[in-house]
Amino acid sequence: MEAEALARACAEKMWATDTASRELGMALEHVGAGHAVLTMPVTERMLNGHRVCHGGYIFALADSTFAFACNAYNMLCLAQHCSVTYLRPAHLGEVLRAEARERAREGRGGIYDVRVTGGDGRVIAEFRGHSRTTGQKFFPDLPEAAP
Amino acid sequence: MEAEALARACAEKMWATDTASRELGMALEHVGAGHAVLTMPVTERMLNGHRVCHGGYIFALADSTFAFACNAYNMLCLAQHCSVTYLRPAHLGEVLRAEARERAREGRGGIYDVRVTGGDGRVIAEFRGHSRTTGQKFFPDLPEAAP
Amino acid sequence: MEAEALARACAEKMWATDTASRELGMALEHVGAGHAVLTMPVTERMLNGHRVCHGGYIFALADSTFAFACNAYNMLCLAQHCSVTYLRPAHLGEVLRAEARERAREGRGGIYDVRVTGGDGRVIAEFRGHSRTTGQKFFPDLPEAAP
Amino acid sequence: MEAEALARACAEKMWATDTASRELGMALEHVGAGHAVLTMPVTERMLNGHRVCHGGYIFALADSTFAFACNAYNMLCLAQHCSVTYLRPAHLGEVLRAEARERAREGRGGIYDVRVTGGDGRVIAEFRGHSRTTGQKFFPDLPEAAP
Repeated sequence: MEAEALARACAEKMWATDTASRELGMALEHVGAGHAVLTMPVTERMLNGHRVCHGGYIFALADSTFAFACNAYNMLCLAQHCSVTYLRPAHLGEVLRAEARERAREGRGGIYDVRVTGGDGRVIAEFRGHSRTTGQKFFPDLPEAAP
Repeated sequence: MEAEALARACAEKMWATDTASRELGMALEHVGAGHAVLTMPVTERMLNGHRVCHGGYIFALADSTFAFACNAYNMLCLAQHCSVTYLRPAHLGEVLRAEARERAREGRGGIYDVRVTGGDGRVIAEFRGHSRTTGQKFFPDLPEAAP
Repeated sequence: MEAEALARACAEKMWATDTASRELGMALEHVGAGHAVLTMPVTERMLNGHRVCHGGYIFALADSTFAFACNAYNMLCLAQHCSVTYLRPAHLGEVLRAEARERAREGRGGIYDVRVTGGDGRVIAEFRGHSRTTGQKFFPDLPEAAP
Repeated sequence: MEAEALARACAEKMWATDTASRELGMALEHVGAGHAVLTMPVTERMLNGHRVCHGGYIFALADSTFAFACNAYNMLCLAQHCSVTYLRPAHLGEVLRAEARERAREGRGGIYDVRVTGGDGRVIAEFRGHSRTTGQKFFPDLPEAAP
């Protein structure tokens, strides 16, 4: 199975049980080897005490996108350390888009950068996630993808 | 008004409009000057593709706790940069507890450390948040609290 | 003055008084608007208790490269928050290369990513720096560069 | 051997080969289990293009202090990810003091917080380091210290 098909197969397996991402209204737009794009609309329940989108939801979108990008190699990976910088507020009604790209992989660790943009393309947040493989596979009968 | 009463008054004002934190089942256990404790139960909808609590919800709990701790001085503060390290998974049904403590304040910036623990007291995550004051007040007629 | 020439003029002014970077053997290979490349050889005095290059020197190289990239717009910027991930050790005798690229700019803040590579091109470290402008200019008679 | 004596023995072994820390003028004031204090004077060669102490040297002091605190258990640990927030500039001639405290340990990972203060006690920087054990020991014949 080639790399892009394997990435999609891993994503489908995760998505099927990923209640959290679906329940937040996220949609999986694209997934590839070390790459993913997800969207999420900002709804009323996501507003914080300043009446803009709670940072936790922006983070959750970035974190899910990171998870799909790093779990694309038939190796189960977990988030170990993540950081986020908030650049502009996100508002009720707009659809946020997050795109994750692989920055580095070394041994069992990986670094992924995720940019979250608003409905008009402005940058809402920049996120960096560090992953670590567990040694488990999504499909035990298939090989791991080469780095 | 003394510092602890001012912290509670700011928290009550934020909480009243903080749909996001309430909607996630968070409870505000304690708030003081530079200090806050919140709890949140892990529910079915918070589970990710690995069937443990999605990191975004753990982050959201820490982020809200950080927000209440830094917004305790009658100065409206926003989160600027946050990082989280996941130490152990959180499971369905347990009640998470987050405690935020002020680490430093300098000029318009502040640093707050938040520890998230599980129902049995084990550490789930360590979070560090960087805040920045906007120059606005919660109660325009009251003075800002001294650092 | 066009953007690239302004970036070089700011860099020359900084470099002239930057004892620290010169004293560590750094060389300024390239500077442009939001972009810089520096090199530094790993010398005996940089070895730590594990006999590989002390992380502080790898950080210093990345930090200097970040400083030249963000101070390229005739606006004096300071580092506010930086993070580094060490991927592989750096060894005595090799020449490290750091390349900084601008990730985002918003208001007075900026985010820059720096990759440090070894003599053979392998990735040694990934660094992310957050800058903040002070409001001062390098050349008071010249305008600030547009973002 | 009790915990504090083991910590000192590990530190002495590291210090003997730690050219980098000694060459920067650092002094090891105290070391214990998960705890260390180091000092370093700001010298002329540490000044950057803004004529204050280059962030790389402040980072190096914090990083060394972190290294002594996490390498106190007869388990060789490496820095994996570090972040620093600069709060105030450090000036020529003052002696900086860094104190590292253990924040969490779980499995092979640890989190350590380091505060760097100036000659007058003001906070210069806050640093957080993430360590990972390699599986090697400083003294193969001695047991690892209990967490």
